[in-house]
Amino acid sequence: MRAIVAAALVLETLSSAAGSAARLQAQARNLTLTAVPGIKVGHHTIAERPTGCTAILVEGGAAAGVDVRGAAPASAETDLLKPVNLVQQVYAISLSGGSAFGLDSRTGIMRYLDEKNIGFKAYGTINVPIVPAASLIDLNVGANPKIRPTADCGYRAAQAASTAPVAEGNVGAGTGATVGKSAGSARAMKGGIGSAAIQMPDGLIVAALVAVNAAGDIIDPATGKVVAGVRTTDGKSLADARVLLTTGALRQLARIGENTTLAVVATNAALTKTQATKVAEMAHDGFARAIYPSHTMGDGDTIFALATGSQPGTADVSRVGALAAQVVADAIVRAARQATGIPGYPAARDLK
Amino acid sequence: MRAIVAAALVLETLSSAAGSAARLQAQARNLTLTAVPGIKVGHHTIAERPTGCTAILVEGGAAAGVDVRGAAPASAETDLLKPVNLVQQVYAISLSGGSAFGLDSRTGIMRYLDEKNIGFKAYGTINVPIVPAASLIDLNVGANPKIRPTADCGYRAAQAASTAPVAEGNVGAGTGATVGKSAGSARAMKGGIGSAAIQMPDGLIVAALVAVNAAGDIIDPATGKVVAGVRTTDGKSLADARVLLTTGALRQLARIGENTTLAVVATNAALTKTQATKVAEMAHDGFARAIYPSHTMGDGDTIFALATGSQPGTADVSRVGALAAQVVADAIVRAARQATGIPGYPAARDLK
Repeated sequence: MRAIVAAALVLETLSSAAGSAARLQAQARNLTLTAVPGIKVGHHTIAERPTGCTAILVEGGAAAGVDVRGAAPASAETDLLKPVNLVQQVYAISLSGGSAFGLDSRTGIMRYLDEKNIGFKAYGTINVPIVPAASLIDLNVGANPKIRPTADCGYRAAQAASTAPVAEGNVGAGTGATVGKSAGSARAMKGGIGSAAIQMPDGLIVAALVAVNAAGDIIDPATGKVVAGVRTTDGKSLADARVLLTTGALRQLARIGENTTLAVVATNAALTKTQATKVAEMAHDGFARAIYPSHTMGDGDTIFALATGSQPGTADVSRVGALAAQVVADAIVRAARQATGIPGYPAARDLK
Repeated sequence: MRAIVAAALVLETLSSAAGSAARLQAQARNLTLTAVPGIKVGHHTIAERPTGCTAILVEGGAAAGVDVRGAAPASAETDLLKPVNLVQQVYAISLSGGSAFGLDSRTGIMRYLDEKNIGFKAYGTINVPIVPAASLIDLNVGANPKIRPTADCGYRAAQAASTAPVAEGNVGAGTGATVGKSAGSARAMKGGIGSAAIQMPDGLIVAALVAVNAAGDIIDPATGKVVAGVRTTDGKSLADARVLLTTGALRQLARIGENTTLAVVATNAALTKTQATKVAEMAHDGFARAIYPSHTMGDGDTIFALATGSQPGTADVSRVGALAAQVVADAIVRAARQATGIPGYPAARDLK
């Protein structure tokens, strides 16, 4: 019996070493949110209607902050993230489609973590998984608005979570996401999930995952060019919301409450909850740069920041925040480029 | 006596009609903050050291909001601007150099307005001019940091205030303003005052005045190109803070508390105090687009929004906010282009 255990241990060690090398290679290639050690991401995509949810797990706990900067948010457990409040660490973030209904996804993620006894220990021993959540609205995409992500969606997304590079495009919380709605849904395009990461020479990693469902156009800030957005009335090319807005062609912007872009930024830096909050704030500059217009009355734009703290040394909050804004903008542009068209909503790759 | 009065009235009417036509022409050409009827702007520039202050007067009163989004602000009378608080209208905004000392400029603007009996009427009759204020830090520019804008500066700026197009560059609150300090003051460039306005076919006007003293580089969002910012070590060309940040050449961003960009956006739209607050929030997207990085721990970035309400009809808050972000970005780029070099700080026009 002891021999068998020993042999198993040797095998596990060998396989772990091989796996480790493979993982290091994969990690080096991974330019998505899971580039940050300790972060797992899983999507669940619902077949019946374009919608779904995404679970971002950080089972070891992470300092967290949030900044809700859109005017039409759907969120849960954001009050506990205020720097003055008690809880210092979260164990997952839930992102979903389905507007306020979709917040139920969070329940499934809580159940998954509770089964593993991961969470805040109330009374010293009673497990309460802390899972802040935000949802975007996609109820008008597809035929049946009654189909929305439920607790089951969240549970499956958590089960699917891994450290593999994050799948992008029409998946998870971004499945029903659309962009370029300044002139209404008829001239809109497909949005979705995008992710980006940057690893600095000193080991600092900053990464973002964004579910892009903006009223605004998607702009590549490096060139000022529109990637996806309001189409011309013939539906064949990009109209440029900046031109429509500043010439007066648009007298009324997107309909209220029918958009929302959601993001999670993560870093291996050691940040306090207060510092993570500032990083979430600065990350919104990535929305401003890659979405035009952004933060409107019709967007519930919300960004969560997670800091796992595995990187030794004191972090420069401004540097982490500036890099967060950068990867958020990069992830938004990727979301538009990785999306695939669905009936009524062509993607960037469909337009020439 | 009556005949003389009557003649004077006729003359006044004639001259007013002629003046009116001239004013309309000037107004059509005016692409600065004073394009919004009811807004007057005056600068006072201090000769002894590059610093000064700017008075934005709205003697008829305006609904106002503020969003302080930098981490190192110097401000006054911003708490009363919270939507839940009592006061609904302000009568001026004070912007100045001199860091926390410079807030004294506000006292001079209050005195100017009090002499004209303009303000909130406490007890029904006792005049209290409401003048929110913010300052930027420029104490290390020039030889003597003890020279700062005082109440006298504010009074003179208010006296100088007019509806003429706003002077830009090294004037008023922007006199000692610098930009591109991500790698320290030695590689920085000159910032200053910029202003921009947009008039829509339906009569909506949205305008901005910005005193640009950012840690970050100034970016033209239309092209993604740097206008002014961190210079190469030889001081001769632009290094591009985006490259420095993302390659790891900068391990620590700008020194804490040695920057700050201030803005006032104004519109003739009829907005509530709450709506003006949302417009101030959205206007920060203009900072994000035209400044890289923006909203750092070293920037006390603050934007005030004023709504005079002379434009009939219900305003679309998202539209006003999106246009506010646009004119703020335009004004920031103008500030860099209109600035003139001073010892140690070349301006955009000095670099080829």
